[in-house]
Amino acid sequence: MTGQRRLRMGMIGGGPGAFIGPVHRIAAELDREIELVAGAFSADAERSKAAGERYRIDPARAYASVEDMLAREANRPDSIDFVTIATPNHQHFPAAKAALEAGFAVMCDKPVTTTAAQAREVERLIRVHGRPFALSYTYSGYPMVRAARDRVMQGAIGAIRKVVVEYPQGWLAKPESGKQAEWRSDPARSGVGGCIADIGVHAFHLAEFVTGLKVSKILADLGTVVPGRQLDDDCQLLLRFENGARGALLASQIAIGERNGLSIRIYGDKGALRWRQETPWQLWLFNEDGRSELLQPGDLGFPDDVASMMRTPGGHPEGYLEAFANLYRDFARLLRGGSAPLLPGIEDGIRGMVLIETAVAHSRAMSGWVDLAI
Amino acid sequence: MTGQRRLRMGMIGGGPGAFIGPVHRIAAELDREIELVAGAFSADAERSKAAGERYRIDPARAYASVEDMLAREANRPDSIDFVTIATPNHQHFPAAKAALEAGFAVMCDKPVTTTAAQAREVERLIRVHGRPFALSYTYSGYPMVRAARDRVMQGAIGAIRKVVVEYPQGWLAKPESGKQAEWRSDPARSGVGGCIADIGVHAFHLAEFVTGLKVSKILADLGTVVPGRQLDDDCQLLLRFENGARGALLASQIAIGERNGLSIRIYGDKGALRWRQETPWQLWLFNEDGRSELLQPGDLGFPDDVASMMRTPGGHPEGYLEAFANLYRDFARLLRGGSAPLLPGIEDGIRGMVLIETAVAHSRAMSGWVDLAI
Amino acid sequence: MTGQRRLRMGMIGGGPGAFIGPVHRIAAELDREIELVAGAFSADAERSKAAGERYRIDPARAYASVEDMLAREANRPDSIDFVTIATPNHQHFPAAKAALEAGFAVMCDKPVTTTAAQAREVERLIRVHGRPFALSYTYSGYPMVRAARDRVMQGAIGAIRKVVVEYPQGWLAKPESGKQAEWRSDPARSGVGGCIADIGVHAFHLAEFVTGLKVSKILADLGTVVPGRQLDDDCQLLLRFENGARGALLASQIAIGERNGLSIRIYGDKGALRWRQETPWQLWLFNEDGRSELLQPGDLGFPDDVASMMRTPGGHPEGYLEAFANLYRDFARLLRGGSAPLLPGIEDGIRGMVLIETAVAHSRAMSGWVDLAI
Amino acid sequence: MTGQRRLRMGMIGGGPGAFIGPVHRIAAELDREIELVAGAFSADAERSKAAGERYRIDPARAYASVEDMLAREANRPDSIDFVTIATPNHQHFPAAKAALEAGFAVMCDKPVTTTAAQAREVERLIRVHGRPFALSYTYSGYPMVRAARDRVMQGAIGAIRKVVVEYPQGWLAKPESGKQAEWRSDPARSGVGGCIADIGVHAFHLAEFVTGLKVSKILADLGTVVPGRQLDDDCQLLLRFENGARGALLASQIAIGERNGLSIRIYGDKGALRWRQETPWQLWLFNEDGRSELLQPGDLGFPDDVASMMRTPGGHPEGYLEAFANLYRDFARLLRGGSAPLLPGIEDGIRGMVLIETAVAHSRAMSGWVDLAI
Repeated sequence: MTGQRRLRMGMIGGGPGAFIGPVHRIAAELDREIELVAGAFSADAERSKAAGERYRIDPARAYASVEDMLAREANRPDSIDFVTIATPNHQHFPAAKAALEAGFAVMCDKPVTTTAAQAREVERLIRVHGRPFALSYTYSGYPMVRAARDRVMQGAIGAIRKVVVEYPQGWLAKPESGKQAEWRSDPARSGVGGCIADIGVHAFHLAEFVTGLKVSKILADLGTVVPGRQLDDDCQLLLRFENGARGALLASQIAIGERNGLSIRIYGDKGALRWRQETPWQLWLFNEDGRSELLQPGDLGFPDDVASMMRTPGGHPEGYLEAFANLYRDFARLLRGGSAPLLPGIEDGIRGMVLIETAVAHSRAMSGWVDLAI
Repeated sequence: MTGQRRLRMGMIGGGPGAFIGPVHRIAAELDREIELVAGAFSADAERSKAAGERYRIDPARAYASVEDMLAREANRPDSIDFVTIATPNHQHFPAAKAALEAGFAVMCDKPVTTTAAQAREVERLIRVHGRPFALSYTYSGYPMVRAARDRVMQGAIGAIRKVVVEYPQGWLAKPESGKQAEWRSDPARSGVGGCIADIGVHAFHLAEFVTGLKVSKILADLGTVVPGRQLDDDCQLLLRFENGARGALLASQIAIGERNGLSIRIYGDKGALRWRQETPWQLWLFNEDGRSELLQPGDLGFPDDVASMMRTPGGHPEGYLEAFANLYRDFARLLRGGSAPLLPGIEDGIRGMVLIETAVAHSRAMSGWVDLAI
Repeated sequence: MTGQRRLRMGMIGGGPGAFIGPVHRIAAELDREIELVAGAFSADAERSKAAGERYRIDPARAYASVEDMLAREANRPDSIDFVTIATPNHQHFPAAKAALEAGFAVMCDKPVTTTAAQAREVERLIRVHGRPFALSYTYSGYPMVRAARDRVMQGAIGAIRKVVVEYPQGWLAKPESGKQAEWRSDPARSGVGGCIADIGVHAFHLAEFVTGLKVSKILADLGTVVPGRQLDDDCQLLLRFENGARGALLASQIAIGERNGLSIRIYGDKGALRWRQETPWQLWLFNEDGRSELLQPGDLGFPDDVASMMRTPGGHPEGYLEAFANLYRDFARLLRGGSAPLLPGIEDGIRGMVLIETAVAHSRAMSGWVDLAI
Repeated sequence: MTGQRRLRMGMIGGGPGAFIGPVHRIAAELDREIELVAGAFSADAERSKAAGERYRIDPARAYASVEDMLAREANRPDSIDFVTIATPNHQHFPAAKAALEAGFAVMCDKPVTTTAAQAREVERLIRVHGRPFALSYTYSGYPMVRAARDRVMQGAIGAIRKVVVEYPQGWLAKPESGKQAEWRSDPARSGVGGCIADIGVHAFHLAEFVTGLKVSKILADLGTVVPGRQLDDDCQLLLRFENGARGALLASQIAIGERNGLSIRIYGDKGALRWRQETPWQLWLFNEDGRSELLQPGDLGFPDDVASMMRTPGGHPEGYLEAFANLYRDFARLLRGGSAPLLPGIEDGIRGMVLIETAVAHSRAMSGWVDLAI
């Protein structure tokens, strides 16, 4: 049905002042697989219209509500094929529910919902309505993240023993101001988690994604550092993976000087891997015999599905938008009836929500601390 | 006329196996200012058609020749607004000439032509036909390159004394194979310059762009390192700028291990700047008092026209495609009647061609070497 | 008494195959303040003699036992001024006790003893015998570590909120072999702590040293990763500082690919600092307004006591041995009757021992973990 | 005769305010092979005496003149074994001549003399008097520089095609002040070369040392950038090696922000190497197949003579002083009758002087420049 024509995307959220909406648009369209044609960019009709103009879409398709978009698009011969949900967290669930029930596939921003129960309900709706559903854990779209996963799966570093995943940011080091900061610090819109929900889940997903291992136990220490803030803005978690591997997850939004410092280090019994989001085309591989190798695009030895994610030759940096575009490329493949086994989905969403809820609940009642009695 | 609708682009070249064609397409469309709608992707009708399918454009607009595209598009109500020339070098001139004569604006890949005389003829045609013309010196589209230029203009490093610009690559370290390598090593398609024409001109433009100074004299040492190659694959130039500043330009295609290592260091009497394409969001500023500062997107202090070139917050890497897209954003502004003073144009193209011809002619007859008599 | 002559050092331990003995010798002598003249390098008389030859000292002063050295040296007119204890951990206490009781000053390797009780007894002996005592927390001798401390004390980063200190190594990723590995993995010689005692205490001291804050509470997760090993080889600690600041301490000896990756990041409410031992002359300062500065030797703005620790101009790397030498320079100042307030002493030793014992005891009985119930 | 006792060193120059004298002292003594026992630290008797006190040597051996030191030491049973010449350049020749004629071995700072003729005379004196003579091209003492040379000799990068060696510094960006700057800018003390003689020769030696190839031809562009300065402070040289390889040598003292940025890149037909003095334990090896490896101390695969130059395990940085100490270790081996084939000697000194004289003479009369006629 979708043939080789461009798939049609309708955006929910992503209106004026949004950060992630325009990112979704660029990412979706980058490979010409997809085209933004409609949107319910804001609950304010005027703002939605303005956004539509900015995106240069047909004014008739800049809708004032999700319901309106879904209803009208369903009746068009050139209807959207899917919706992208790029709203604050609390709107993810109702939007996803409505879209799935209306028969549309969904690309949803993370965290998938604001509660694990909602996430499980989304899972049920996906099953019932049989539509593709993907979750934008962006960082899993970096070619070198996939290459790292591939190396792990090939046994290059042996059995995994230890994982350190970090996600320091500094942009919330001061009492928040600005739209992006405000909703992320507001439980009514963000859910029970602050830092853990906004970036902690990225780090968590990355750790599970690259290792191919599930985290089975956590020990969480969430804190609210900036006075007056309602949600956590600094997280320290200790981890145990299903195979017994040890781990730590450190995320923060109050780390002045840090921009978007997601990184992962994975130590096995035969080698190790290191990747850092701010220089995303570099993947370090440390071998058992002590050799340190820097892997980069253009090198030999990447499997086809990784190599095909690199659009430019080595030395021509691809970054965040291209990684995001790789998720949309996977998603388009799904929509066209193919498979995309590495594209994050609702099961990753549920895991993230359980992590958030467990960490928040657990940190409040945390035991295990002991005084240094000197 | 073009109003706020997306501008329509027709591509010349960029067919199957091309590197730079798809890059132009992504870059042009990234900000939704422009849309690829037509192309003469290959002189082979079948191949052009196949490319049109890959790009997902209307099959009727995948033309078998430049002439055909220009003639037919001129008669469409939704005609293309401009052409992008993404062919091997020797086709730049006839394509640009035809497009300009047919009344279309042109975005041309570098080097602008294969001779300085052709470049001057293009300049004449631009004047005669009054259409916008831009040249894709991609690296001038990096926000931090513009930021560097801004700092120089603001006097942050004082009077410029010394410039070192380098462009090492390693991909032609072996006898060439593959489409990309072959035409670049063939005088009939590349022109008189090899390395100097393919990447030397990028380095040259970058040096003049950031410093705001013209190179007035050169001393060139071009060499052909790989046996059997017809054109230069390694260039060493000494430079004098119009203000007397000293400089060196080193470019190579035989530097194994180097990917796309364009970099520039500019030393003034009050400070210095350093930028490197492979980590393009980092700009080092060295101050007179010894302070070393690392400037990155998200920092304060960038002028609006630089800050607006950054699509993502600090720490979310933007790279080569986004830099290229910034040139297209400038170009769209031109086409809509605005100004884009930093967008490279024909005068930059002429300078590049004179550089190539002078370096090649001069290197052949180079004097100045002396033996170390030990 | 010691006037301006070189101070005389007697070494305990540091015989054939030793790592840290030769390091102490080089560090002590680097500034010509101190001279190695005697040693009880091994409990094996032949081996001690061989070590004496290798160190090129007077053969008569290569003793077969600590007791012998202390007794004989006490009767020489050119007696040693102090002993350096460079043995495995379990010999620190008896050696320190004997030396102090014999009236000699002591430079002791870390950890100071194998139990906190012993460390407290050393403290008592120091008080009773009134001799200088120093502990070789080497990394506090790096000029940039002192510069970092100075910046913190000057308020450059405001009130400290978060500290991440890491010390990954990979050299014990396999079942141990070799003298250095063996004793460190043997409770009889190393004490109750493995990784925590060998490198964890360095990280702990560094965190307290640079911040000027004491850790008041910990939550420890120590593990033994390599099968068959008796002591911990991987440590993850969460920290609370006396002012409420949050922290994490990660140390490992099984992190393949890591060499000696001690690093610290300190985030305040007005700025942040970052230092990494493997490029020790670089200190990053992140300012409240977003400016990122790289501080290096040769820059202006270091206080005299920091600047005087740099022996070479900027760009001439000084490393581990020079940092160690800075501790000896401080120690020589103490011995000559001056003050060295930043030189680690017995109180730092006690803190380290309490950390080790608390972490080991606590980790065994750790609560606080929770399953991810998905 | 010298047996296993410490060798005795007498220093010429290196008095108050000196930079390189204390460096020679530390380097010489680092391995306890050598001991500073005497010196003619200054032509001013009081200053020489003061220096002797600072170095803590026997006051009777702090001489007021070179002649005095050589005469008196020759009559002592514990006479010095060699002299180190650490004066400004113009005193190298008379000091070396006097020492050799008095039968002492010599470690001389670079450049060896102020003219090539003097250097040749030193060569004659060495032959006549049969004493060891070494030249402190410090950077050849870095283990990774020796490792790089070893890899080249083993054929790891194939036939060398291209060399880029750079030595940017910024400390003379302003009109000079201070003792170190003054004599280096004074032709009467420095000789005909400024930058080329002070640091250019280091870069030149490094290039020849690592490649094992001699430079056969140069094309020099020396400039004096700071107004009023008498000697060159910026050098750009193009090189041809004896095997036809191409090269560039860039050195500068006016490059603000640069500290001591000596670096070398060597491209062969099978691989490449990269080393940078400011992180001297890192050696990059790029392989023909595209693999990028980072070699560091502690890795396997270094030949014994390289591995033995590393005093600490991987990750414990050794720097400039240790590299210098490696030259003295070689020198001690020579003095004890062994061999030290890689220790720089008079032939390296002569080459450096010919380079300086050729570059200065040639640059003045340089032809080969051509205008960019645009």
